[in-house]
Amino acid sequence: MAKEPKKLDELFHDTLKDIYYAEKKILTALPKMVKAAQNPDLKAAFEKHESETEEQVGRLEQVFELIDKKAQGKKCPAIDGIIAEGQEIAKEYKGSPALDPGLLAAAQAVEHYEISRYGTLRTWAQELGLQQAVGLLEATLREEEKTDEALSELAETCVNQEGQQEAAE
Amino acid sequence: MAKEPKKLDELFHDTLKDIYYAEKKILTALPKMVKAAQNPDLKAAFEKHESETEEQVGRLEQVFELIDKKAQGKKCPAIDGIIAEGQEIAKEYKGSPALDPGLLAAAQAVEHYEISRYGTLRTWAQELGLQQAVGLLEATLREEEKTDEALSELAETCVNQEGQQEAAE
Repeated sequence: MAKEPKKLDELFHDTLKDIYYAEKKILTALPKMVKAAQNPDLKAAFEKHESETEEQVGRLEQVFELIDKKAQGKKCPAIDGIIAEGQEIAKEYKGSPALDPGLLAAAQAVEHYEISRYGTLRTWAQELGLQQAVGLLEATLREEEKTDEALSELAETCVNQEGQQEAAE
Repeated sequence: MAKEPKKLDELFHDTLKDIYYAEKKILTALPKMVKAAQNPDLKAAFEKHESETEEQVGRLEQVFELIDKKAQGKKCPAIDGIIAEGQEIAKEYKGSPALDPGLLAAAQAVEHYEISRYGTLRTWAQELGLQQAVGLLEATLREEEKTDEALSELAETCVNQEGQQEAAE
């Protein structure tokens, strides 16, 4: 008998493991971003996002419970690549006025990856009739969108300061 | 004498190379997505995005010209990872009703990566006083946002069809 093709519930579970791995990886990357950031507002934004990420991991664990699965991650080359690029910037632009804009750009790439994943998972949870999961995924999605907006605002401030710093040299 | 730290114009140039590499990579991935997609509307959406991507590459080449640099890419592990995940889904879900939702999710992860990069580049172009570049980057940013919205709408349709197909079995 041919193997049954995997269905939407399995795709949902696979993608949940992908974002769970991603969130855990982000949790290990954020303290390095806090340390690297120069602007105190940027440091504070990364710290705030760190505690939010911990809550988001908790919500994912609740979704795993709702589908009767053990919370576990699955290697996600996308987030590994995004975080590697951020770490390269932290190294290459150390001591440069362009460091903060570079860190911000890296953080926004992370946010957008999360926004796409949570948007997708919410759509699938809806279709699978997992109403409680929809609420949990939606809550995180809204948080990620707000974080991205806050980072966009900070990006304009940081870049302006960078311009002024260069002009004053 | 200590080496001067890299500044915002260099960060802009580095990030331009990153997205140029990404767009070229997306151009090689899209025909495979067109071939793999089952839903004709999804196939059409990927085809449309292919011709848009060609124009976007052209706009990036104009931005390179504006800063007097040769158009060239720089390996971008983020897009490599995102595309690798899409290809894994195409393989794992072949023949499954969840294939199209999976391909859509992969495409939306790509879109969000691009949205974050173009948003960042536009902010920096503004700060660097590259007004013509701002216009070009903004045009692509708006296109990517529209593509993402169109994919979100398709995602709901595809998932609904998938549900109906499963219910009819």
